[in-house]
Amino acid sequence: MNFEDELKQKVQETEKTVYEFLPEEEGFQKTILEAMNYSMKAGGKRLRPLLMAETYRMFGGTGEVIRPFMAAMEMIHTHSLIHDDLPALDNDEYRRGKKTTHVVYGEAMAILAGDALLNYAYETAARAFALEPGHERIGKAFRILTAKTGIYGMLGGQCVDVEYEGKNLERERLDFIYRLKTSALIEASMMVGAVLAGASDEKIALLERVAGKVGLAFQIQDDILDVVSTTETLGKPVGSDEENRKTTYVTLEGIEKAREDVRRLSDEAIEELDTLEEKNPFLMELLKSLIDRKK
Amino acid sequence: MNFEDELKQKVQETEKTVYEFLPEEEGFQKTILEAMNYSMKAGGKRLRPLLMAETYRMFGGTGEVIRPFMAAMEMIHTHSLIHDDLPALDNDEYRRGKKTTHVVYGEAMAILAGDALLNYAYETAARAFALEPGHERIGKAFRILTAKTGIYGMLGGQCVDVEYEGKNLERERLDFIYRLKTSALIEASMMVGAVLAGASDEKIALLERVAGKVGLAFQIQDDILDVVSTTETLGKPVGSDEENRKTTYVTLEGIEKAREDVRRLSDEAIEELDTLEEKNPFLMELLKSLIDRKK
Repeated sequence: MNFEDELKQKVQETEKTVYEFLPEEEGFQKTILEAMNYSMKAGGKRLRPLLMAETYRMFGGTGEVIRPFMAAMEMIHTHSLIHDDLPALDNDEYRRGKKTTHVVYGEAMAILAGDALLNYAYETAARAFALEPGHERIGKAFRILTAKTGIYGMLGGQCVDVEYEGKNLERERLDFIYRLKTSALIEASMMVGAVLAGASDEKIALLERVAGKVGLAFQIQDDILDVVSTTETLGKPVGSDEENRKTTYVTLEGIEKAREDVRRLSDEAIEELDTLEEKNPFLMELLKSLIDRKK
Repeated sequence: MNFEDELKQKVQETEKTVYEFLPEEEGFQKTILEAMNYSMKAGGKRLRPLLMAETYRMFGGTGEVIRPFMAAMEMIHTHSLIHDDLPALDNDEYRRGKKTTHVVYGEAMAILAGDALLNYAYETAARAFALEPGHERIGKAFRILTAKTGIYGMLGGQCVDVEYEGKNLERERLDFIYRLKTSALIEASMMVGAVLAGASDEKIALLERVAGKVGLAFQIQDDILDVVSTTETLGKPVGSDEENRKTTYVTLEGIEKAREDVRRLSDEAIEELDTLEEKNPFLMELLKSLIDRKK
């Protein structure tokens, strides 16, 4: 099977796992359960739980314990999208071609559905305690997951991003936002997969570095594609983001340096991952594809 | 020491514990950290962490492991207040005589500060895994805490309450809201205290029933006080809530039955708690004071 077909199949399997942990839409609180599931079923690449599962597999993990954590990771990610889209934040009415949660269910329900998904993520992950006697690993996975999601992780990056919207960012602050907002959940995904499979602290630290670089390269590539896509679509010159006062890696460093840095970060990440005795060729391809993507 | 003095002292100790787990206000994400701490430091009875600590003590608990869970419980409660007060929900500008979080920090930051507190609650509780080798109890406490906070607990009650605002409620739905919105965190507080001290499943189930009744009596007493306070302050007749179309226990059942039920629930809760061989006279007084309160 080639990579594209394998990816497609694995994304489907990942989605199936995530769906199995969604709550039943019944009882007095039916509306909120529908709102939660609406956003969870709105599609997406299921990238984070897939990375988690593949890292688990790379370290020889074969148990059930990874599954609630995979679902939890996707719930955390989806929670952040629902709240990002709210009128008080990005005020987006569509995501992935579907109306956003607050457009369908109203603002109050969207706020509560986001809260409920974040909480249900941990409620779901906590099921792992009943599955395996290896509680020490699960506790460790919990510590990583909560830390990488919170104010010293994704939510911290999100806050600084919101606070500095429309303002000029220096490089240091931009790096901070990218590292937390984009890289933190990718780091958590790979680290939790490794922890649950029993990887050593040293290897978990290596994965954190690898995932951090992949996340950063992914985000810079996003900035590059924004510029390139604008040029092609609207015929505006490259670098027009500069005039929109939106600070990106490209407006700060120029597109050539941005491209070089994506390449360098990508090479470093892949090389470092390759120093491990544990191998997962699919995971390696997946990480490369994230960075080399054209859209 | 009489009960009032003991209570005052214990509330202070509880607050001190909670404060020790608040994040430092530093780094790029300083604003969100300030917003989180602003609401955490806005006062309050610290009732839930106090109930947790006293239940832990009742079952002989003496360790450090309870402390992160106490702080976590107060963070969860505070998260719910910040989001309740938002313009899209209750739109309250003041709480406990202080401006609410969105008034001070703006709506976007208040949404994110609420998210951040909910997440930080679990991040804080997860510190317990590093404190004690008794991981099995901690995992169990996690399962209770997440479940009682989520869609089958506080957040579920909150959603139904918001969805049916201004509509007539039948008794069954009102009970559901009270049980989840008010009782769930009180149940969690006592159950987590007991679990971490190593209480048996049977005793934990007993505490869940006791706390459920205390929470319900507490909420009905709230409805009664609303009416009584209205009568005294505004000279409106008892039962005027009925005209405001707000369904409460009093509008559904009348004030006499409400008073009887508070008494009955309270008596049942205290009697059942008293069947345990473990005793904590202060906890008993505390539960009684919650129900007998005049304000």
